[in-house]
Amino acid sequence: MYLIKSNGYNVEIGTKIFKSISSLITKNKYSSHFIICDENTFQFCLPSLIHKCPNLRDAHIIELESGEASKAINISTYVWETLIENKADKNAVIINLGGGVVSDLGGFCASIYKRGIDFINIPTTLLAMADASIGGKTGINLSVLKNAVGTFSQPKGVFINPDYLNTLPAQHYKNGLAEIFKIALICDKNFWNELKNTDTNSSKELLLLKSVTLKNKIVLKDPFDNGYRKTLNFGHTIGHAIESMLLGTNKELLHGEAILIGMMVESHLSFQKKLLSKKELQEVFSLLKKVFEPQKINELNLTSIIELMKNDKKSQGNKFQFALIDKIGSCKFDVIISDSQIKKAIDFYNSTF
Amino acid sequence: MYLIKSNGYNVEIGTKIFKSISSLITKNKYSSHFIICDENTFQFCLPSLIHKCPNLRDAHIIELESGEASKAINISTYVWETLIENKADKNAVIINLGGGVVSDLGGFCASIYKRGIDFINIPTTLLAMADASIGGKTGINLSVLKNAVGTFSQPKGVFINPDYLNTLPAQHYKNGLAEIFKIALICDKNFWNELKNTDTNSSKELLLLKSVTLKNKIVLKDPFDNGYRKTLNFGHTIGHAIESMLLGTNKELLHGEAILIGMMVESHLSFQKKLLSKKELQEVFSLLKKVFEPQKINELNLTSIIELMKNDKKSQGNKFQFALIDKIGSCKFDVIISDSQIKKAIDFYNSTF
Repeated sequence: MYLIKSNGYNVEIGTKIFKSISSLITKNKYSSHFIICDENTFQFCLPSLIHKCPNLRDAHIIELESGEASKAINISTYVWETLIENKADKNAVIINLGGGVVSDLGGFCASIYKRGIDFINIPTTLLAMADASIGGKTGINLSVLKNAVGTFSQPKGVFINPDYLNTLPAQHYKNGLAEIFKIALICDKNFWNELKNTDTNSSKELLLLKSVTLKNKIVLKDPFDNGYRKTLNFGHTIGHAIESMLLGTNKELLHGEAILIGMMVESHLSFQKKLLSKKELQEVFSLLKKVFEPQKINELNLTSIIELMKNDKKSQGNKFQFALIDKIGSCKFDVIISDSQIKKAIDFYNSTF
Repeated sequence: MYLIKSNGYNVEIGTKIFKSISSLITKNKYSSHFIICDENTFQFCLPSLIHKCPNLRDAHIIELESGEASKAINISTYVWETLIENKADKNAVIINLGGGVVSDLGGFCASIYKRGIDFINIPTTLLAMADASIGGKTGINLSVLKNAVGTFSQPKGVFINPDYLNTLPAQHYKNGLAEIFKIALICDKNFWNELKNTDTNSSKELLLLKSVTLKNKIVLKDPFDNGYRKTLNFGHTIGHAIESMLLGTNKELLHGEAILIGMMVESHLSFQKKLLSKKELQEVFSLLKKVFEPQKINELNLTSIIELMKNDKKSQGNKFQFALIDKIGSCKFDVIISDSQIKKAIDFYNSTF
């Protein structure tokens, strides 16, 4: 069992988290309990959670459809109306049992219901364990804009059970792995070197411990995203635009798949800005391609990408500001980039296939 | 010109606020400006605002329908989509030009758009000047639940121009006056005595200065509503329930009108709990009836009121906790009250007609 201290709460990693969840719930004397899940966690994770935490037996279950489409305002309204119908007061708690969609939406709903009630995250995907459920960001999408509205709100606790990963399809495991490689790239060269030699399918608990610890350090330094935390956006400016562009087409990507391409394209931006050497650029491409086997994206349309980036939360006016690695294991932010540099980087990415 | 220091921002009262608004906007170098108004402030307040603040000439105008029905999730979504369409980034600002509906909704939209952008309140009704635009509470209604979702978020500044009150119908002036009398009742006996002898239609600026200063002291002591601030709820537990109950009927009340009845009913609760003497109860009823001329409410249905109160943000489980004056100018909170005591208090209110 590992315990990482974050912003007023703990992240616990291990297969014995259920006792801690039970204690936290008992200690806080919540007036009512609401568990948000999707059809997958309803089937695979909820029964054992309730079995191992008997004080959740009376919990109200709110089941969402899995997938990004649930991170929406109408689903939030459905959650709030369910809370109201069941007379949830300010001392109610929401338990988010699921991936990033569940914790982003559930945290958002909790953080503004009656101006804020408690919530607890039990992430069930690697992406949520390594990234989404830590750092206090919540949010939902509006039309094509990811996390268009949201809050900075800390959970009362994050409980990570690596056993949940055994039920995850390989594609979803890699989806989370992308964020773990990102953390290594932006802040820990040794971890990157370890990843080169690790069978990422074993030693999941240690991978998680390492990446959660690294992400936690970054968010503690800058809880409201005013400076250093922006380094976490490496790969995300291009990645989000690609994700939005392909949303709803038959080429739709998972978040981690889009971020992976984003990291490769943005590494070339680093190279163009003379932040990254050619040798390190090749090292990044070579390891990411070996582990993730990404595809060439013929649909990459520069004009759409630029338009989507203009509406990204990270953009400020008409300048494009990127978080870019300046060597493996280190990252700068607010680097100004032009349209034509983006085009060059995308062309380079596609030319490597 | 009066200036009151609040939680990280100033409240300015006077007819020369426009220069301060201009300076604040210039100083912060906002990337774009959005003014939220309703059809009334669009007509009566917007032209002079833009005339006197030339740096708002390029502002995007978002016009809502006046009335409580606009404090809704679909209207919030409309505001967010307008921000997105106009490429509002994290450095955009929202200026709320209107009554409590505009500042509650506009503050809410600003506080969670891209996890928070700045907003400025220019209240145009007495209710908003004296109450809604101060204290950092934002929110919208869901189904019948007032302020079902919301945030604690401080504006960058509150600018009160008492001249706006001259365009207000008498009913709306009294609507705000109710909150001013409430402030006196809960925390300042001298102010209450002044109100007895004041022509409330003159000396508006001084009335505002006094009530804003008193409310500001309370919210600074307890910004997140964990204790002492609950005294501001005096009159609101019953008042909100009455307001919700009559919403959409031909007996619909303004917020201040409902709160006024709430204060009278709850004063009787104080009397029943032996917090308030019979003499002071009579003094409260006599002055409030003289100034406000409230009506008997035959529609008061105890069962509906109890049901609505159970879902009030202030309720905790099945107990009813009230903020009750324990003499004129002083208030307790978390006083436990039963159904039958509420019935008695409502019966008493109606028996005085």
